[in-house]
Amino acid sequence: MPTDIPTSLLGRSLIGFKEGSDTPDPKRAIDPSNGNEIEPPFFNASSEEVESAATLAKNAFQSYSGKSGAERAEFLEAIANEIEALGETLTQRAMQETGLPEGRIIGETGRTTGQLRLFAQVARDGSWSQPRIDTAIPDREPLPKPDVRSMLRPVGPVVVFAASNFPLAFSTAGGDTASALAAGCPVIVKAHSSHPGTAELVARAIQSAARATSMPEGVFSLLFGGGRSVGSALVTHPAVKAVGFTGSTAGGTALMKLAAERKEPIPVYAEMGSVNPVVLLPGAIADRGESIAAGLHVSATLGVGQFCTNPGVALVKKDDAGDAFVASFVEKMKATASQVMLNATIQSAYSDGVQRMDSSQGVRTLVSNTVNDGSSGCLGSAAVFETDASAFLADATLSEELFGPGTTIVRWSETSELLAVLESFEGQLTGTLHGTEDDFAQYGDALPILERKVGRIVYNAFPTGVEVCPSMVHGGPYPATSDGRSTSVGTHAITRFARLIAYQDSPQNLLPPELRDDNPTGVTRLENGKFAS
Amino acid sequence: MPTDIPTSLLGRSLIGFKEGSDTPDPKRAIDPSNGNEIEPPFFNASSEEVESAATLAKNAFQSYSGKSGAERAEFLEAIANEIEALGETLTQRAMQETGLPEGRIIGETGRTTGQLRLFAQVARDGSWSQPRIDTAIPDREPLPKPDVRSMLRPVGPVVVFAASNFPLAFSTAGGDTASALAAGCPVIVKAHSSHPGTAELVARAIQSAARATSMPEGVFSLLFGGGRSVGSALVTHPAVKAVGFTGSTAGGTALMKLAAERKEPIPVYAEMGSVNPVVLLPGAIADRGESIAAGLHVSATLGVGQFCTNPGVALVKKDDAGDAFVASFVEKMKATASQVMLNATIQSAYSDGVQRMDSSQGVRTLVSNTVNDGSSGCLGSAAVFETDASAFLADATLSEELFGPGTTIVRWSETSELLAVLESFEGQLTGTLHGTEDDFAQYGDALPILERKVGRIVYNAFPTGVEVCPSMVHGGPYPATSDGRSTSVGTHAITRFARLIAYQDSPQNLLPPELRDDNPTGVTRLENGKFAS
Repeated sequence: MPTDIPTSLLGRSLIGFKEGSDTPDPKRAIDPSNGNEIEPPFFNASSEEVESAATLAKNAFQSYSGKSGAERAEFLEAIANEIEALGETLTQRAMQETGLPEGRIIGETGRTTGQLRLFAQVARDGSWSQPRIDTAIPDREPLPKPDVRSMLRPVGPVVVFAASNFPLAFSTAGGDTASALAAGCPVIVKAHSSHPGTAELVARAIQSAARATSMPEGVFSLLFGGGRSVGSALVTHPAVKAVGFTGSTAGGTALMKLAAERKEPIPVYAEMGSVNPVVLLPGAIADRGESIAAGLHVSATLGVGQFCTNPGVALVKKDDAGDAFVASFVEKMKATASQVMLNATIQSAYSDGVQRMDSSQGVRTLVSNTVNDGSSGCLGSAAVFETDASAFLADATLSEELFGPGTTIVRWSETSELLAVLESFEGQLTGTLHGTEDDFAQYGDALPILERKVGRIVYNAFPTGVEVCPSMVHGGPYPATSDGRSTSVGTHAITRFARLIAYQDSPQNLLPPELRDDNPTGVTRLENGKFAS
Repeated sequence: MPTDIPTSLLGRSLIGFKEGSDTPDPKRAIDPSNGNEIEPPFFNASSEEVESAATLAKNAFQSYSGKSGAERAEFLEAIANEIEALGETLTQRAMQETGLPEGRIIGETGRTTGQLRLFAQVARDGSWSQPRIDTAIPDREPLPKPDVRSMLRPVGPVVVFAASNFPLAFSTAGGDTASALAAGCPVIVKAHSSHPGTAELVARAIQSAARATSMPEGVFSLLFGGGRSVGSALVTHPAVKAVGFTGSTAGGTALMKLAAERKEPIPVYAEMGSVNPVVLLPGAIADRGESIAAGLHVSATLGVGQFCTNPGVALVKKDDAGDAFVASFVEKMKATASQVMLNATIQSAYSDGVQRMDSSQGVRTLVSNTVNDGSSGCLGSAAVFETDASAFLADATLSEELFGPGTTIVRWSETSELLAVLESFEGQLTGTLHGTEDDFAQYGDALPILERKVGRIVYNAFPTGVEVCPSMVHGGPYPATSDGRSTSVGTHAITRFARLIAYQDSPQNLLPPELRDDNPTGVTRLENGKFAS
């Protein structure tokens, strides 16, 4: 049963089982719907508190990494229960801090607890660690074969930066935290300044779960900090062995640089920008242009366009059906009400981007809804731009991400133009193809280009909505992410916080349980080249 | 059947199926046993040739990455056959260029062809790519579940830097080349200037195999180049997507920096230095000190100490049994004949290191064999140094790698000193423990420290000799390697040249065979959370 968590917020960092101090210049969250400050103030972690959290995590690593998969699973499930017990308190605070509607917050809470329970299963099952055993052949000629066994082991303390656009699923107890804890890594979360109250509530849920399941102090800490000093101190701390981040390209690349320049460079998993090209092939547009326009409109405006997988660029052939499609999409986007964005920084970046597109050469502004109600500076309005393949290819700024409900339609005439536009994209989280069977045959060259560019290819659907399941890949080549080998969603994500260790001729009692002859946890493993369990 | 490869060397780069040009200032290999130049001269690749190799690799990627696992397996097996067909020609040339004895070259050739055949099996089997299928649930509430399938796919063209110390197994057709080709990546090898003739012979074997198995031009190229310009041009070329390197810390970190500063940063797998600490616990020394001394002597002097896994530092308790052990080890090292090292650069770095140790505070030189026969500047002589834990902890230079047959013995008195010395090590390829059951119980705190520091833990044996098998891990935290998540030996190595791609709601005919419903290749995959094949 969940323990009682006091619902009044204290505004202090959580450093292991202790609270941070009341440091100078605390900051309150802002309600983006009206620009008002929300109580209480949140105190930035001091450099001593950063040091303390890192040292506690380092010390916790030894015992936490030795916990069994089943013990880690209980901890993750306890976190999920504690978060659910927060109920309305969490929903209301998150809504107030982000401007996101109730349904979205409740859904995202469910996704977050679902992820925690999924990673609990993964930890309990243990096969994520890829145990392998090759037994000895003492009489092999010319040399004896030793006994070698290996598996993925947790990498060490992990720093997770909470994302502005997912106050729960990519924040304090989000995907990176769940997968790092499941792997056996202590986690230090740097809260996002947009939703510190949500962070504190969730962090206290984690803290309660850690106590209730007898986890070592330091297995989790939450630090508040405006500006970049707390984050930089964490990423450069010698005790920290990996970093998870979801946010801007500027933020992500700054962390990559810090991590690469350390005495011991460490991996950074930064999910950054993506325009998620959507290729709408002519047969599909001719067959069902109206329904594609409706689907694209929903996907482009979902959550005020504030998703990493938001479809930012659509490729449409210059023909009559394409014109009709554009007209229909434009009509829907024009009729879309402006909505509150997450915070003033995001709203202002989006407005700047819309203005930049509007004044770009060769770009036609088809929709640019103006907000005149004076109620808030934080409203995001749908925008649609149209350009030709040649203009798009001539100006790299046209392929930059517009984080918000803005879509650029690129019109092409020849197949070669379509392929050239696809080839021009940098790494992306997703690439989407709408087509008929004939389209896919005729434009077959598009697929291998997309495969080189993206982490996930979507057919006849839309990129928003990332299913949390074993096969999901939410990643992609740079600059979509810092490390295109990995994913931040789905069970594969656990491997990002692990590294291989081999044990040669080890006594049985010194091996991790997953590698012992008697396989006490019943894990599926590769034994002398064959899967067995 | 292997095709005929002309055995006379041309000294030109191999760019796809073509030969490079005769550029100015060609360089001959040096016979380290006598310092003489060996014919013919080798011509540095021009910048146009680098460009051409990269473009061919980029173009080859599309078709090569689409070859089936079985087709890639045939290519790898053909390479192994072609290398075997080189026979004595290859053995003699490699011996002359490296000073390594015949048995070693023949053994290393066998390891190289064995690796190629092992990766052929891995490619044919296909389970390395971790195919996962989660089927759709169209009527799921509140949202339908899409069909999602994912697997590891090749990352793109790979550049491999040949290693000085393994002219075959870590060079032109070595582990990185085999695993990259098995994954579906074209490879460009930068030859090592110490053994260009060996490189050319092996590269022509690969070229023949590529023609014989109808692989696309550009699937493989070999480039010669003195200095760093060819290597730098390759690592910074936009077509290149990953780098494998085995060599010095200076070389590896320079490549890491170049790769991190690219417009699109790419992964670098650099295997660099390691002192491979060997912990000789008191019970083991008391029980079988003499046999441990004999084993350590063999391991420390094998291949004139020119192995990445050479045991550079041994930790021995200050007690009578420890003294006897050191005396026995010293006697064996003193009696070891000097041997030809790989090249003058390595010999000179080793000599400098020996001198540095000899003049270090708190270090006693127990063995420093002098070479006076004047026959060559390239002889490496065994050296043994002894120091105390406190002196070792006070001077970080004492833990630097001495690449050659030099071993430093660190004497400790208290368990706390032993643990402090272990804690002081940076990342290592290996850590070795010799102990009795009682030792392992009494010094149990040593193991978790080693687990944080190394890629492979060896019990009651020695670190040299890296078994090529599914469970092997030849890697370790920085600075042993640039990326402690990976291994350069064993079948896990194939994943370093791959990244995850997901396909959502894909038509069956557009999926890679490994992800199709009918599983035509019979690969083991995770289907809705369960392993199946």
